[in-house]
Amino acid sequence: MAEQIISPQNPLVKMAASLKQKKNRDKYGLFAVEGSRLAEEALKSGWPVEYCFFTAEDSQNERAGKIIEMLQSRSCRMLQISRSLYDKISDTEQGQGVILLIKKRQADIKAVFNNKETSLLIVLDELQDPGNVGTVIRTADAAGCDGVILTPGCADLFSGKTIRASMGSLFHLPVVEAMPKSAVISMLREKKIKLAATALNDADIYFEADLRDSLAIILGNEGQGVSDEMLSAAAVKLHIPLYGQAESLNVAASAAVILYEAARQRRVNL
Amino acid sequence: MAEQIISPQNPLVKMAASLKQKKNRDKYGLFAVEGSRLAEEALKSGWPVEYCFFTAEDSQNERAGKIIEMLQSRSCRMLQISRSLYDKISDTEQGQGVILLIKKRQADIKAVFNNKETSLLIVLDELQDPGNVGTVIRTADAAGCDGVILTPGCADLFSGKTIRASMGSLFHLPVVEAMPKSAVISMLREKKIKLAATALNDADIYFEADLRDSLAIILGNEGQGVSDEMLSAAAVKLHIPLYGQAESLNVAASAAVILYEAARQRRVNL
Repeated sequence: MAEQIISPQNPLVKMAASLKQKKNRDKYGLFAVEGSRLAEEALKSGWPVEYCFFTAEDSQNERAGKIIEMLQSRSCRMLQISRSLYDKISDTEQGQGVILLIKKRQADIKAVFNNKETSLLIVLDELQDPGNVGTVIRTADAAGCDGVILTPGCADLFSGKTIRASMGSLFHLPVVEAMPKSAVISMLREKKIKLAATALNDADIYFEADLRDSLAIILGNEGQGVSDEMLSAAAVKLHIPLYGQAESLNVAASAAVILYEAARQRRVNL
Repeated sequence: MAEQIISPQNPLVKMAASLKQKKNRDKYGLFAVEGSRLAEEALKSGWPVEYCFFTAEDSQNERAGKIIEMLQSRSCRMLQISRSLYDKISDTEQGQGVILLIKKRQADIKAVFNNKETSLLIVLDELQDPGNVGTVIRTADAAGCDGVILTPGCADLFSGKTIRASMGSLFHLPVVEAMPKSAVISMLREKKIKLAATALNDADIYFEADLRDSLAIILGNEGQGVSDEMLSAAAVKLHIPLYGQAESLNVAASAAVILYEAARQRRVNL
């Protein structure tokens, strides 16, 4: 059975609304996921849902209703709230469905290095835009990557924008947060995974490079590109030719081009 | 010499601020471009700049200063405003540099069909997110496309979000707005450009298809995909395999994958 909350001063409502800020997500160890589609992905993946907020109206919706029913049978606190309280917690305009508060979870680095014969990884080097971080995770998932590693300085994995842009892919593949660059470099060396950085100079055209070996593709900050520390550790430098007048590609577009070329080479040459 | 405006009631300031809405962009035939980088692209491209707003502080900045100097020698109205008026006009938080009001311009469809031996075009079929429309235009520019065609129902080409996501690429290649689908289809037939639609069913894997002929790649709406009208007119259907658990790719990522595969095939097989 669901509890009913009507007061905007309710501490659970206040806590849930406060999760829009990273410091509060860190403090409570929780993050919010909104909408039926993302909630379904979270449930399928088995991430630990602690709280479920919903309105009476939304619980009548078939899709949201199923999620509520499923969560009622788990050890999740069910909280029915008014539309105005929902809007207070929600991170989007005219949000609807359900809002789940989920326990933050850090992927074990071992899950990324899953001892497959050939790995394909993404390393995000201080990528600042949450939309870009989320979109790259979604594309990495689609392209069959084994995992994504975020260096310190990346946009927060658990912000609403990142989660929405990932379309739930952060529940699909291991994503490691805030791994120091030196640790990334030594870990990849130990695992014999080649570092490939996107670069403008002294770089091979991405489709002329052999992308079939175990590979970690490093994508750099939107303004600065890949950091010197990562660049100097890279065994391969790749560049995507610009055939028109654009000065650069969006980093998520670059990720799509290189990841799918790696995927293509691995399949065509089987 | 620049005019000084201090009143928030000034009609030019009000008009400039009103351009955040499409109906006013249509009414005045103008759109706003903000920041030195985008302003430089607009100037290089020769689009007609009617008004230039700037603060005293920004005019001291080297990059913005050069833009102001260049525009002073053209028939552009120069308007020095206070920071608070700038913020009123600006479409971004903490915007800076200059704000140019530029005459809207529709690319001639003839510019898209430039009679090159083999064309590469993008058709956006009711793409609704301005960020996606802008990012696809940027990627199309980078991949060497001849032009982009928007059907009715796409996000407005001249919204601030679209322009920022395009990173100025809308000034680089011809973009045709609001072209009815039936006109797109008959025009492409006449020009003997094959229509290739992204599709989930009965489609070839994009890298197994021959993308070297003249091709117009149709990308569909974020939720619905390519419309039936366009799909039934397509000579080729392409799909991008999903190797992981993601249900789909972001449309701008899909554009990057297919456009760069077309570019690759055209270069590798020379």
